[in-house]
Amino acid sequence: MSQKFPAPIKYVSKNPAFRDLINDKISRQYFMNHIGFHLTHVEDGYIEGSAIMEPFLRQQDGNFHGGVIATVADLVTGLAAFSLVGPHDRVVTSDLKISYFSPGYGDHIFARGWVLKPGKRLHYCEGEIYDIRGEESFLIAKAYAIMAVIEDKNKEIFKK
Amino acid sequence: MSQKFPAPIKYVSKNPAFRDLINDKISRQYFMNHIGFHLTHVEDGYIEGSAIMEPFLRQQDGNFHGGVIATVADLVTGLAAFSLVGPHDRVVTSDLKISYFSPGYGDHIFARGWVLKPGKRLHYCEGEIYDIRGEESFLIAKAYAIMAVIEDKNKEIFKK
Amino acid sequence: MSQKFPAPIKYVSKNPAFRDLINDKISRQYFMNHIGFHLTHVEDGYIEGSAIMEPFLRQQDGNFHGGVIATVADLVTGLAAFSLVGPHDRVVTSDLKISYFSPGYGDHIFARGWVLKPGKRLHYCEGEIYDIRGEESFLIAKAYAIMAVIEDKNKEIFKK
Amino acid sequence: MSQKFPAPIKYVSKNPAFRDLINDKISRQYFMNHIGFHLTHVEDGYIEGSAIMEPFLRQQDGNFHGGVIATVADLVTGLAAFSLVGPHDRVVTSDLKISYFSPGYGDHIFARGWVLKPGKRLHYCEGEIYDIRGEESFLIAKAYAIMAVIEDKNKEIFKK
Repeated sequence: MSQKFPAPIKYVSKNPAFRDLINDKISRQYFMNHIGFHLTHVEDGYIEGSAIMEPFLRQQDGNFHGGVIATVADLVTGLAAFSLVGPHDRVVTSDLKISYFSPGYGDHIFARGWVLKPGKRLHYCEGEIYDIRGEESFLIAKAYAIMAVIEDKNKEIFKK
Repeated sequence: MSQKFPAPIKYVSKNPAFRDLINDKISRQYFMNHIGFHLTHVEDGYIEGSAIMEPFLRQQDGNFHGGVIATVADLVTGLAAFSLVGPHDRVVTSDLKISYFSPGYGDHIFARGWVLKPGKRLHYCEGEIYDIRGEESFLIAKAYAIMAVIEDKNKEIFKK
Repeated sequence: MSQKFPAPIKYVSKNPAFRDLINDKISRQYFMNHIGFHLTHVEDGYIEGSAIMEPFLRQQDGNFHGGVIATVADLVTGLAAFSLVGPHDRVVTSDLKISYFSPGYGDHIFARGWVLKPGKRLHYCEGEIYDIRGEESFLIAKAYAIMAVIEDKNKEIFKK
Repeated sequence: MSQKFPAPIKYVSKNPAFRDLINDKISRQYFMNHIGFHLTHVEDGYIEGSAIMEPFLRQQDGNFHGGVIATVADLVTGLAAFSLVGPHDRVVTSDLKISYFSPGYGDHIFARGWVLKPGKRLHYCEGEIYDIRGEESFLIAKAYAIMAVIEDKNKEIFKK
């Protein structure tokens, strides 16, 4: 990575099995698998992944489709939030904002997402999307996501 | 459409050929065609379209993938903005924000986008995404896009 | 109002005393009172208000300060959300986005806010800010707010 | 500052007089001066400032008003963008988004803003707002701003 921005603050997950839960979740993530996006790094509150940019993921001019960039942004921020919630909780995307800085046209897309501020109800997350052109990488978009924590409805029962 | 919000203000395109230009553009929109999204209505500053929600466009729980929703939001708002610019200009997505209200799980996705405020440099656009469940439709997300107008560099030459 | 956009969908409050609660709340809203913003219309899920734009509310060039526009946007969307929650609940701003279309430089600012999509946890709201220049009004900004519902902690007790 | 996030990437201004221009601009920033916000650090593409949180800048519950937080966010991101443009150019806020993490109730507000990605037309900026409680500081909000560069119309004349 030739251009990489400072690492965000790291949080510690309260769920020791979060890696297994993420692996289980993504095995059934049809659209994610369809576009060939796979995770390359999984940490508490921090996720990295990449995909080969096949022709079908591009626009009429050969650039990465904005919707593909939004998709990988949603994935890395959502999984980063998911890694921090309780073993029976889940997260849903409440709001996703992407700022597109410049077009991507390289061979790969790389994305990383992290939790900026975890909360009882909402996890505020950020993500970066890079265009990988051979040995070089370029930040082409930044993402801001609000992930709502959906608490396990049976939690009270489990607690007993 | 059982649930449809008030129609936005309409603008008039200065480009008489905007329908042809949109048809030409989408014929080469690989990702849009790949997910099966097709336009059902094209007007000055206003676009509608829909897609059958095939299994590969869904998440692990069968709901519409947030990235697919973002993709169709980008398409309808971007084409709405494109319909209002000059014959040799184009638009790029500068910023895209999606508010996700509730999960989509029906058969079709329907999206409409419009230009809320056109400008010399930026077109502020909005879009709505509906989940079509048989005869009923539900607003599941709203999109806000800022489309930058890229003026034709040769405009001065053409003007002569 | 010479330029007014379509009215949004209206919701019905479950709290019969919401007008009194809003009046009580704003009587202690120091910053709102300081800038001279007062409500002109209060309805279930819909709020209007205005202020005389005194010189101290402007920028170096005489235009309305972006922060003042954000302030009135926060007020009308927050109160619109507040009007729909339960008698003992309250709302806090989770996220506020303002799109600035053009500068304001008239005598008054007028703002209206409404709940686009109410929810158990989050109320998605929108607002419009107008510049009032004599008899004419101009839409100068649009606001998008996510208001989190803070449920009364003693609700279970009250329910008994 | 007890809690401070990693420093962003720094850019170099092409305008050697940017400090003087910022000082001149803020001397006529009526609303900024009215709320008592003053700059504590000025650098190429990076601005810090703070204010004593007088009672009139608060809500009914004594917390910092969301509009005040938006105002200081607009100021530090706008001035950060302004520091990087040409000597005769200026910037206007096109879009401002604030994510509110937790309420502020301390004695001072501290804000810093920076340019994440400068561009010919748009500068993408970020900002952080801290609540200063005695010796401790807490990140209470993050801001994302899109500042449009307004090029000096007489630039061609000056170039000759």
